[in-house]
Amino acid sequence: MTKDVEVAERGEYSAKDYHDPPPAPLIDPEELTQWSFYRALIAEFIATLLFLYITVLTVIGYKSQTDPLIKNTDQCGGVGVLGIAWAFGGMIFVLVYCTAGISGGHINPAVTFGLFLARKVSLIRAVLYMVAQCLGAICGVGLVKAFQKSLYTRYGGGANELAAGYNKGTGLGAEIIGTFVLVYTVFSATDPKRNARDSHVPVLAPLPIGFAVFMVHLATIPITGTGINPARSFGAAVIYNKTKAWDDQWIFWVGPFVGAAIAAFYHQYILRAAAIKALGSFRSNA
Amino acid sequence: MTKDVEVAERGEYSAKDYHDPPPAPLIDPEELTQWSFYRALIAEFIATLLFLYITVLTVIGYKSQTDPLIKNTDQCGGVGVLGIAWAFGGMIFVLVYCTAGISGGHINPAVTFGLFLARKVSLIRAVLYMVAQCLGAICGVGLVKAFQKSLYTRYGGGANELAAGYNKGTGLGAEIIGTFVLVYTVFSATDPKRNARDSHVPVLAPLPIGFAVFMVHLATIPITGTGINPARSFGAAVIYNKTKAWDDQWIFWVGPFVGAAIAAFYHQYILRAAAIKALGSFRSNA
Amino acid sequence: MTKDVEVAERGEYSAKDYHDPPPAPLIDPEELTQWSFYRALIAEFIATLLFLYITVLTVIGYKSQTDPLIKNTDQCGGVGVLGIAWAFGGMIFVLVYCTAGISGGHINPAVTFGLFLARKVSLIRAVLYMVAQCLGAICGVGLVKAFQKSLYTRYGGGANELAAGYNKGTGLGAEIIGTFVLVYTVFSATDPKRNARDSHVPVLAPLPIGFAVFMVHLATIPITGTGINPARSFGAAVIYNKTKAWDDQWIFWVGPFVGAAIAAFYHQYILRAAAIKALGSFRSNA
Amino acid sequence: MTKDVEVAERGEYSAKDYHDPPPAPLIDPEELTQWSFYRALIAEFIATLLFLYITVLTVIGYKSQTDPLIKNTDQCGGVGVLGIAWAFGGMIFVLVYCTAGISGGHINPAVTFGLFLARKVSLIRAVLYMVAQCLGAICGVGLVKAFQKSLYTRYGGGANELAAGYNKGTGLGAEIIGTFVLVYTVFSATDPKRNARDSHVPVLAPLPIGFAVFMVHLATIPITGTGINPARSFGAAVIYNKTKAWDDQWIFWVGPFVGAAIAAFYHQYILRAAAIKALGSFRSNA
Repeated sequence: MTKDVEVAERGEYSAKDYHDPPPAPLIDPEELTQWSFYRALIAEFIATLLFLYITVLTVIGYKSQTDPLIKNTDQCGGVGVLGIAWAFGGMIFVLVYCTAGISGGHINPAVTFGLFLARKVSLIRAVLYMVAQCLGAICGVGLVKAFQKSLYTRYGGGANELAAGYNKGTGLGAEIIGTFVLVYTVFSATDPKRNARDSHVPVLAPLPIGFAVFMVHLATIPITGTGINPARSFGAAVIYNKTKAWDDQWIFWVGPFVGAAIAAFYHQYILRAAAIKALGSFRSNA
Repeated sequence: MTKDVEVAERGEYSAKDYHDPPPAPLIDPEELTQWSFYRALIAEFIATLLFLYITVLTVIGYKSQTDPLIKNTDQCGGVGVLGIAWAFGGMIFVLVYCTAGISGGHINPAVTFGLFLARKVSLIRAVLYMVAQCLGAICGVGLVKAFQKSLYTRYGGGANELAAGYNKGTGLGAEIIGTFVLVYTVFSATDPKRNARDSHVPVLAPLPIGFAVFMVHLATIPITGTGINPARSFGAAVIYNKTKAWDDQWIFWVGPFVGAAIAAFYHQYILRAAAIKALGSFRSNA
Repeated sequence: MTKDVEVAERGEYSAKDYHDPPPAPLIDPEELTQWSFYRALIAEFIATLLFLYITVLTVIGYKSQTDPLIKNTDQCGGVGVLGIAWAFGGMIFVLVYCTAGISGGHINPAVTFGLFLARKVSLIRAVLYMVAQCLGAICGVGLVKAFQKSLYTRYGGGANELAAGYNKGTGLGAEIIGTFVLVYTVFSATDPKRNARDSHVPVLAPLPIGFAVFMVHLATIPITGTGINPARSFGAAVIYNKTKAWDDQWIFWVGPFVGAAIAAFYHQYILRAAAIKALGSFRSNA
Repeated sequence: MTKDVEVAERGEYSAKDYHDPPPAPLIDPEELTQWSFYRALIAEFIATLLFLYITVLTVIGYKSQTDPLIKNTDQCGGVGVLGIAWAFGGMIFVLVYCTAGISGGHINPAVTFGLFLARKVSLIRAVLYMVAQCLGAICGVGLVKAFQKSLYTRYGGGANELAAGYNKGTGLGAEIIGTFVLVYTVFSATDPKRNARDSHVPVLAPLPIGFAVFMVHLATIPITGTGINPARSFGAAVIYNKTKAWDDQWIFWVGPFVGAAIAAFYHQYILRAAAIKALGSFRSNA
């Protein structure tokens, strides 16, 4: 049945005002000669820097204001775990909005990896984006440490670590599913509506993407502190540089990459082109 | 007067750039031969799984972090009831956004029931959606239990139960009105603007739908924990599997289905086509 | 200078794809013969009922969960004042979204009064909207009392009262400015973009209107509990029915009506048509 | 390479449905003869007044309700630092939405300065906007003081001061980066989509701008109380009028202006026109 459907879909496409771009090449030498490519790298670098700067500063500020071991702190006086979750989700909303037209607004190696698997970006672009993201994350966390050195180290440096009482399998599972939620949202937001507007990410897409990040943080901050972004975990580990953060580091690379791969598979093989078809069959039913 | 109006309305429709689809058949054999139908079922299953996974994980994480009986817990250290309400509402926003083009984005048997009553989906689709939603909910809560078994059982398993001090009538009423708010919003979001865009749910509709869920949780978490989604209540009851959760279970099926039926009636009989007419009369007044 | 500008503006209008509707008549007998008019009244009634039901339930639930005089209550365990502010703002977002195409989405006598002053609705419509809103509010609060009678009376019934330490002038001022913020947002959201879409309230307008209500609640809950909606204050006073709530009631009618009148004046006389003109002069400057 | 690219870009522009307005003149005498110019000044004055009124009232209300030195205060009973951050961000969302079509919706001398550097507004307009914003801020804070004089002075008057334990360099850095985030978002929101709609700020732009303000407040309230808006800091200092607020005042002018200048440079020289180009190259790659 699947094969027939594929044929039918292709026929539907040519009739619709919709064109599926061909897969991106693995290596595109021409890309490297364009200024826009380097600007995209700069935009990813700056966005990831700002992302880590704002979010880790929020984490450290919250922990320092509510530390029960310090006299006269107001335990309810910080932004709370809810505020931290907002910081991560809200910054992704703002930064995807700002960089969508420049670089596609990845700001996350797992998102880049998922889009690479779906052949939306070339291999060379994917690798260099990830390098830019990791460098940006290191600089962003470095700024926070420079601003408040003693607080930074005392309150865990915003590093992702497995919480006491959870085994590595649970942490890995939490990262896989959390990243699946994010990358699934990214695919949903960027794919079926591409024909409606000519910008890569439609104007409203950043909001659900930011909310997906917000939601995952609400759920998994108690387990892993929530990574779902290897650049975020790596940047914090480099600047914080304690054994525990490095020992758990693999979880925050393997988990997000596996989650992104599952999301890419789910979107491309299960849901791909389903949007158009479902709508068509819905109409003919009705 | 009503009858005249109906006639006038039909005349207005044919003049307007608006066409009302005929009611969906009760059973549509052709539907079952389409791959898009099965993809819609998969999408409902995965979306409800993710919905329960994120929200119940948030509930358990909050309760474990702020338990006053455990030493050294920080009573202000969790996401709070406000964070829990955000988790439910925000996930519905994200998931309706992601699945709207694939399955219509129900993720809730009460929504499916309301849309079936309004003849927007066939009987066979409605029943299979509900099955997919319930299975997804069971798997989602099962994942949470697998991740944190001891915490899961100690903190109530995210199950909906009537709080102490409220009688069954109050709980039922809270579920009826809460589901009415949700399904009324779903009808408002999907109906009068259908002509403006050709996707089933317009691009902005998921946001008010998510907010409706958020609002109802703010109001009724103290009474029933807030169901307004039989799959959510059923999935948690299956995995938690305690007497109290099963004894109250009927409230979380009868309440939402009654609320959805009232919303469908209100929309179809009181407000139906009113959007177009009100606008017309508004203009001719002005 | 003003006169010349008015002439110029009118010229600009005829050139633009924009037409200003003539002012609504004070009394329009034809309106009373249309079913859509009565449907609009029903929609205002139901929306105000749901608004009061959800918000007052949130207030009572919060106060009962965090009461320091009751043993074993968790003082941080409720949705907080922030959650209450979200309930008011979020419900206005959802309900304006749902009723905008039916009744214009007022849900507030102060908004109706402001739009009447700007001659957007007839006198008869304005008066009957206010009656429907007040009846809806009474029923909504009545439902809350029916659900949790003892809690309702113990925790103040959601009634607006001047807080201890504030004089009546301050309360009146807070209501005037708060309502000004709301009605100013309503005028901004509904006016200059009317030409872009043919629905009365454009699809995005409910969000800033809801946020305006959210913001005013953050600021003035400590002073008056925040009215800025005479139907809300009146409905709570009728059901709660204590001397203090009735003694302060005039503040919650005079304040919002004065604030709405100032907003209507500001919009119609200072900003009216400024949107189009400012844009034009901006372009010719640039 | 850069030079070639610039030429290529210009060619691309003329082919695209996009026209870059010429830079605004430094002094435009004609501007001063237009009523719309004075209306824009009034709109900036009123918007900044409302911004300071709502936000400072929220700050004072929160501090008075949770003061641990006062008996019977409920330490969890206020809106929290999260609520304060929402007040600042949410008001910017609402007010930019309301004034975008009238004045461009700056409400912040740093934003005006950044847009002046990018030659989007004339010098005379920039200077008079800043004057209107500062006067509005003074009046807004003055209203708060008039409403609750004793509380206002006791709880710090909403003034921006460097927190204990941070040196001036850190405060300055926090203001620079925070304002960079805001003004970068403003440029991103207003520039590449200008061709899609003819209003100065597209209808969705106010939301990410408001979120940027919200995010920066989450991160830097513990350090400086968060200025990133010289009018806000100046207005509070004038009404509060204590030595410490005046001593730190320069930080809240130099920081935001430097941050805005960097954002204008980044946007105009690094990202300028990149949106269109990146998209083009993306397509040809794909």
